[in-house]
Amino acid sequence: MAKKVRIALDAMGGDFGPSVVIPGAAISLTRHPDSEFVLVGDSAKIEAELANHPALKKVSKVIHSDVAVSMHDKPSQALRRGRKVSSMWMAIDAVKHGEADVAVSAGNTGALMAMARFCLRTLPGIDRPAIAAVWPTMRGDSIVLDLGATIGGDAHHLKSLAIMGSAMARVMFDLERPTVGLLNIGVEEVKGGEEIREAAELLRAADLPQLKFIGFVEGDGIGKGDADVIVTEGFSGNIALKAAEGTARQLAEYLRAAMSRTWRSKIGYLFAKNAFKALRDKMDPSKSNGGVFLGLNGIVVKSHGGTDADGFAYAVDVGYDMVRYDLLNKINQTLDRDHGAAPAPAAAQEAVS
Amino acid sequence: MAKKVRIALDAMGGDFGPSVVIPGAAISLTRHPDSEFVLVGDSAKIEAELANHPALKKVSKVIHSDVAVSMHDKPSQALRRGRKVSSMWMAIDAVKHGEADVAVSAGNTGALMAMARFCLRTLPGIDRPAIAAVWPTMRGDSIVLDLGATIGGDAHHLKSLAIMGSAMARVMFDLERPTVGLLNIGVEEVKGGEEIREAAELLRAADLPQLKFIGFVEGDGIGKGDADVIVTEGFSGNIALKAAEGTARQLAEYLRAAMSRTWRSKIGYLFAKNAFKALRDKMDPSKSNGGVFLGLNGIVVKSHGGTDADGFAYAVDVGYDMVRYDLLNKINQTLDRDHGAAPAPAAAQEAVS
Repeated sequence: MAKKVRIALDAMGGDFGPSVVIPGAAISLTRHPDSEFVLVGDSAKIEAELANHPALKKVSKVIHSDVAVSMHDKPSQALRRGRKVSSMWMAIDAVKHGEADVAVSAGNTGALMAMARFCLRTLPGIDRPAIAAVWPTMRGDSIVLDLGATIGGDAHHLKSLAIMGSAMARVMFDLERPTVGLLNIGVEEVKGGEEIREAAELLRAADLPQLKFIGFVEGDGIGKGDADVIVTEGFSGNIALKAAEGTARQLAEYLRAAMSRTWRSKIGYLFAKNAFKALRDKMDPSKSNGGVFLGLNGIVVKSHGGTDADGFAYAVDVGYDMVRYDLLNKINQTLDRDHGAAPAPAAAQEAVS
Repeated sequence: MAKKVRIALDAMGGDFGPSVVIPGAAISLTRHPDSEFVLVGDSAKIEAELANHPALKKVSKVIHSDVAVSMHDKPSQALRRGRKVSSMWMAIDAVKHGEADVAVSAGNTGALMAMARFCLRTLPGIDRPAIAAVWPTMRGDSIVLDLGATIGGDAHHLKSLAIMGSAMARVMFDLERPTVGLLNIGVEEVKGGEEIREAAELLRAADLPQLKFIGFVEGDGIGKGDADVIVTEGFSGNIALKAAEGTARQLAEYLRAAMSRTWRSKIGYLFAKNAFKALRDKMDPSKSNGGVFLGLNGIVVKSHGGTDADGFAYAVDVGYDMVRYDLLNKINQTLDRDHGAAPAPAAAQEAVS
């Protein structure tokens, strides 16, 4: 029988804490009965929730923590106040010490990244981490990274993102050689953006067996599904994600207003209710919840802070998949292979990391 | 009686040339009877179209040009081949020589920007131009810039964008003191992005009477209408625009598929047809067509290349408004005022421009 997947949860993270985290874990457990949990946080509150979920209780270990990182703490505050003692830190620390294979938190992104980086350190050959997530497209799902962990970065950084993102696509989508595109703007010969052109040359030259580089992709190419993996530095990745989310919300609002404007449109809505439900499901952010922190010596998954139990369960599922299908080994294999091909720069990178 | 607004059109620009440009101009003329036109391009084709639009013919002067810039020419190619002789160049040149107040082209963006920059030069105090456009939001319309003219830029560049964008908002929305936000990502204390924080300090310190700086806005704040003017450098501005456009197309496609899935949803569609039409109108890109080039000694408006006559007419309307409500003077007044308050850096900027 395969090894169990051990998942550490920051039970106090997010807007609702244990009342979402525990039911969410219970939902994920029904889908992956070979999971075990380490639940970190206020043990009284956790136990109260666990009473409603006996199956989860049976496979969980509760670790008490008095300190919860607030959604408004700055990363530096969170580190000062929460290092070693907060539920967020202790969940990550369980990964570091081999008591869990992955940590999942709905707590604040900046604090979680700061703690994960401080506690787990970056992989050899990677000096700056990234956040990656699934982006629903017209052609299926893609992986987009970096969604905001690291602003800017040179061609080598972009190449590392391509390697890590393609490893995640292999895990999530069961692809042998996912396609990878670099996000760029359409206007050619504009001053700036040299690092993106240089990264394209690096990726073309490396011709890695684990990913197929297809060139540049524009902003509207993400939703078209132009590539399985879309790579960009963290500022523009975050802007792209938020601009797309904002547009989706805006159009949903227009649609709602249009359908309730006249008695005819209201009748139309009644007839088409199931169609609208299908549309809502398709647009439901909880169905693609779970940002994966890449580039660290361990896996950490960030859930949306305001999500419900279904959304949190999805983030736990993502964490499960990353472990079960061996994300870290897949990343390291590609990095090693790439370093083998070009040992000198790899050594240089390790020296500074 | 007020002075006429003289509009130079690159009749060969865009995917369809005179067959869209001339009918588009005719539509705009019905809305602004105090317009006059300079139509540059293949005079035989232009005259053939003008025969169907006698009112437009009466207020137009045709200038022949044999050379049309292709939608696929690189900016440098376009400049080499089209300088002085192409319809695009000659339309811009009409602005330079005072024969027109504004030039409008649906030709390729990179070529148009290269020619406009080469022909008109940047305003004193501005060293790099920008593209701005209207972005429909839940609270009305906003101006977003830079949509891709200039990649990157320091705090002073971002401040110039704020000044130019707010002048455009005053023209388009008839506001006395538009609100201005700087596009940024949510995670604080991330390495990088210093220029944005510095720009925020500059704008706060300047406290200009022509704009009200409100701080940072995230990607989803654009669609919420968090500010009348959203400022960012050209790479992330272009990514935001394209990601939003891509999402809108994706959701329209989902909606279409959902409504044609079952007989019930098809009946629903019939009842709600008018509501869907209103929704389509709201999402219609031709209703917000027209990118304005800012920072040059003259006004140039870029229309989408694939637009129809209605969309091109909207771009001509934008050009008309920029002239009628005095965009360039509004920009220069604010720049002068700002320079008056801080003469030393202004002089330094002029020296390098």
